[in-house]
Amino acid sequence: MDGGNEILSGPKLVTEGEWAGWRTWSGLDAFEDQTGPFYYREENGVVRSAFRAEPRHMNGGGFMHGGCMMTFADYSLFTIAWRELTDMRAVTVSLNGEFLGPAKAGDLVESTGEVTKAGGSLLFVRGLISTGGAPMLNFSGVIKKIRPR
Amino acid sequence: MDGGNEILSGPKLVTEGEWAGWRTWSGLDAFEDQTGPFYYREENGVVRSAFRAEPRHMNGGGFMHGGCMMTFADYSLFTIAWRELTDMRAVTVSLNGEFLGPAKAGDLVESTGEVTKAGGSLLFVRGLISTGGAPMLNFSGVIKKIRPR
Amino acid sequence: MDGGNEILSGPKLVTEGEWAGWRTWSGLDAFEDQTGPFYYREENGVVRSAFRAEPRHMNGGGFMHGGCMMTFADYSLFTIAWRELTDMRAVTVSLNGEFLGPAKAGDLVESTGEVTKAGGSLLFVRGLISTGGAPMLNFSGVIKKIRPR
Amino acid sequence: MDGGNEILSGPKLVTEGEWAGWRTWSGLDAFEDQTGPFYYREENGVVRSAFRAEPRHMNGGGFMHGGCMMTFADYSLFTIAWRELTDMRAVTVSLNGEFLGPAKAGDLVESTGEVTKAGGSLLFVRGLISTGGAPMLNFSGVIKKIRPR
Repeated sequence: MDGGNEILSGPKLVTEGEWAGWRTWSGLDAFEDQTGPFYYREENGVVRSAFRAEPRHMNGGGFMHGGCMMTFADYSLFTIAWRELTDMRAVTVSLNGEFLGPAKAGDLVESTGEVTKAGGSLLFVRGLISTGGAPMLNFSGVIKKIRPR
Repeated sequence: MDGGNEILSGPKLVTEGEWAGWRTWSGLDAFEDQTGPFYYREENGVVRSAFRAEPRHMNGGGFMHGGCMMTFADYSLFTIAWRELTDMRAVTVSLNGEFLGPAKAGDLVESTGEVTKAGGSLLFVRGLISTGGAPMLNFSGVIKKIRPR
Repeated sequence: MDGGNEILSGPKLVTEGEWAGWRTWSGLDAFEDQTGPFYYREENGVVRSAFRAEPRHMNGGGFMHGGCMMTFADYSLFTIAWRELTDMRAVTVSLNGEFLGPAKAGDLVESTGEVTKAGGSLLFVRGLISTGGAPMLNFSGVIKKIRPR
Repeated sequence: MDGGNEILSGPKLVTEGEWAGWRTWSGLDAFEDQTGPFYYREENGVVRSAFRAEPRHMNGGGFMHGGCMMTFADYSLFTIAWRELTDMRAVTVSLNGEFLGPAKAGDLVESTGEVTKAGGSLLFVRGLISTGGAPMLNFSGVIKKIRPR
């Protein structure tokens, strides 16, 4: 029910351009490729995910569409929990979001978060999407490991 | 923070093809155009929204991406509540979803739901996304009216 | 993490008083006894749960406390899903609620809902709490079966 | 729809016993008095809320009832946001929780969290309930200011 599987297919390290040093599994998830691509990197044990907002991500009001934020949140559940998902397929069980603020075309949109509980079959994750330090979306979700790859 | 504004710009009636008889505001919301377009119609007082799943909506596992479902859910909050939003701009305050089942490319994906409470400034909506009668996503959300157009 | 276990201990049929004909497992769950007791019955395949609001259920504003509603919602997850939980222990994984309206002391508070998906290990439930036909709380949650009794 | 009003009636400082140095508005909210009482204090800008788990808070499995945790979470929304609510009545609009772990009778149950966004009429709060450093409930909610006192 989500893009979690892709994480396990081995993300690629970007070596040039704005995202040099970040990882992506562009090419492995059609909807994330269409919506993003999104990128992530781990720095000092903290996973940060990001993408650059474009006009195609906006709603009719000129702000980032809530569905775009939720798609990035769903992606972020799996980047935040990637260490728990090595060699494991997983799906999203639930995703909850509260919309805190907007983003406009050109903004760098980022997410960070933590695994609040790693159970045998269920992983609990929460995070925050922001731009330039301004909060955009608070999210939390549950991931279910379904089987080893 | 969502596509709600568009509803108020007057949806277009589709007159031919698979979606003849349905309404869309394709052309007014960049992210919904990229993800959908989505369509809706009211039959016997029930608002039904729908779109046709394509390979570009799938995740790496070959099933519809959770973010695609959440985008359609966010859209559906506003189609379900459209009567309460005439001449009113509105944004999504919160959106919650539980993932019940998958969809594959080619599936007709539909949503229905109801306004559980229409307050002065806040609208509460819940709904269900399904395909061929099989449940995909249970969702609920809060919409805030922000100003008359 | 909730009172689900009790359902399986065999609810008692109330034979007299306001709740004659309803079932309760009063005596098996300390917190539900303190907060309720709550009652449920199945009529024409629909599970209905209920309790009578008292002053002790109110907040400082004189309306039913949100925590009281969420406690009744958590209870309702298990009454709504009781057929799926026979001889099975289970716990709540997540619970989401939107507050739609108040109740006052003396009101009859009821809930109804449905199992939106019954998986092998996870059950998805949604429901609505109301009084006299006026909506109070929309809720949805995920239950995890943990082991046979 | 919740206990928020009480915060504004001026909490009392406890001067003796286990909760000396903590604040409570015991006596002002019937349901919180029945369920708790709960206590909170601010240390270095961080609001911490707490109560001592008793047998009456447990479910039939001998662990803290999910409804008890959600009641404490609803209370915590208002203690975490108390600075934004001075002289203001407010109600809970939505409350979401994921159950991470149990508590037993005798455990000290605590919550901390932050206001993720303080809007003109809506406050967004998230937090975590834990005991002895072990996570119990991740929660997030939306509060609506309704009027000055």
